[in-house]
Amino acid sequence: MPDPLFDKAAILGVGLIGGSLGLALRERGLAGRVAAYSRTAATRRLAVDRGAADEAPDSPRACVAGADLVYLAPPVATIVPLLAEVLPALRENCLITDAGSSKREIVEGAEALDLGGRGFVGGHPMAGSESMGIQHARGDLFEGMSYVLTPTERTSPDALDAARALAEAVGSTVYQMSPERHDSAVAAISHLPHLAAVALMMVTQRRHEGGQPVYDLTAGGWASGTRVAAGGARLWRDILASNRAAVLAALDDGDRALAELRRLLAEGRDDELEALLETVRESKLAHPGR
Amino acid sequence: MPDPLFDKAAILGVGLIGGSLGLALRERGLAGRVAAYSRTAATRRLAVDRGAADEAPDSPRACVAGADLVYLAPPVATIVPLLAEVLPALRENCLITDAGSSKREIVEGAEALDLGGRGFVGGHPMAGSESMGIQHARGDLFEGMSYVLTPTERTSPDALDAARALAEAVGSTVYQMSPERHDSAVAAISHLPHLAAVALMMVTQRRHEGGQPVYDLTAGGWASGTRVAAGGARLWRDILASNRAAVLAALDDGDRALAELRRLLAEGRDDELEALLETVRESKLAHPGR
Repeated sequence: MPDPLFDKAAILGVGLIGGSLGLALRERGLAGRVAAYSRTAATRRLAVDRGAADEAPDSPRACVAGADLVYLAPPVATIVPLLAEVLPALRENCLITDAGSSKREIVEGAEALDLGGRGFVGGHPMAGSESMGIQHARGDLFEGMSYVLTPTERTSPDALDAARALAEAVGSTVYQMSPERHDSAVAAISHLPHLAAVALMMVTQRRHEGGQPVYDLTAGGWASGTRVAAGGARLWRDILASNRAAVLAALDDGDRALAELRRLLAEGRDDELEALLETVRESKLAHPGR
Repeated sequence: MPDPLFDKAAILGVGLIGGSLGLALRERGLAGRVAAYSRTAATRRLAVDRGAADEAPDSPRACVAGADLVYLAPPVATIVPLLAEVLPALRENCLITDAGSSKREIVEGAEALDLGGRGFVGGHPMAGSESMGIQHARGDLFEGMSYVLTPTERTSPDALDAARALAEAVGSTVYQMSPERHDSAVAAISHLPHLAAVALMMVTQRRHEGGQPVYDLTAGGWASGTRVAAGGARLWRDILASNRAAVLAALDDGDRALAELRRLLAEGRDDELEALLETVRESKLAHPGR
């Protein structure tokens, strides 16, 4: 095993992402030891039982004490408050990074705190899933995934290097961009698809309540189109709320696309519809996604 | 093996569905022999090579000669014309059924022909896929799937029984309903999800053309939300066109659902948004789809 990147990693929030990071750090020998904190005692125990952490102290400050990596992976709305809470207990020169699904609010909030010499780097591993919680954590979750880092002009080069080394060490490919650019992109490719899945479920649910045999007839297109609607309601409320403006802009884009499809269909412009479907098909085949 | 249900099955159109039906009939010994017809010579050869048919004559009339099952699985727009073309060559008392993704137009078109004593039953195996063509055909494609039959008051009970026996023999669960009821349901659970996937691809493609790093950042939500957009453009143009009114009504439902989500998000009604997400999540967990 190579030398560990960190003496002590502190993971605050051990759901799917935090738990998987703990497993990845321990399986790959990337940290001398791993401490994890969750508000819930049962989750703390599970983090240790599943091997995602060596220890799980019952306060966030105890968790971060002496850590040279502080990894914030609680629900998106609590990232900055939790950072503010542990601030007095942080070691000098530790790397602070987060896994929040939107970045502008979090990065602005973190940079508004007095972090001393400590380096904060906003991050987003593009590895979410509708399977939430430490029970679905896997040490290889980050492998082959994109991992966005969102440094600003206030980010120290050392902190950025350390965050990049961490993301690469768990198997991800790093993309670097501004928080705003990240938020706009994920609004289109993550938050909008989530709302589309929810809307498809709403349509189905209402047809079902109206007596249509919809659930009996669902096939693969429905199953995949609605898959992510099984994601946590609180989790997604917070993600959407934390990226409100960019999500509304992506909804505008979605409305425009649907309106265009409707117009072609309503006006019987079937040749144009087919040409559009073909363009889209080629894009999808060229970019199947991961 | 049980006695075959049919002496000779004629499959017109050997793509994913027709090819899979041929494989299922032959693997399960459900037909004395299977003839298949495709307009394309290479596909006819492949149907025989892959074991989906015993023979593949080069005309649809030769294919149906002597058949007591005529299974129409060409592109949806060509089902009725093809039936009209083979009509003079059909055996008395054969079962005619189809696999078209929409039913009202096809059933009306078929019933407008003079079928003599032959029984037509509209059908739709809910087993499509973005993987098209005989090369993806599988003898177990229909297993565990829903198979809709859409008899009308003109459908003979014997023909309906035979169509039901066929669908059940290939492993499907049969649901029976009017063509209109079928078309309205699939507009919501198949055609609308298809348009949603296409719209998500359009948004992504345009962001990409605008220089956003969207494809680099896609994760599971995008991949599943856009999966079916890889489906054939001609195939889907025809499906959507053949179910135009019901699809437009489903688009209205989709617009309403998206508008509701947008309103909650834009107005900061995050508690209501969360409650709605939770309702939808529970429906999805109760109905994961197949």
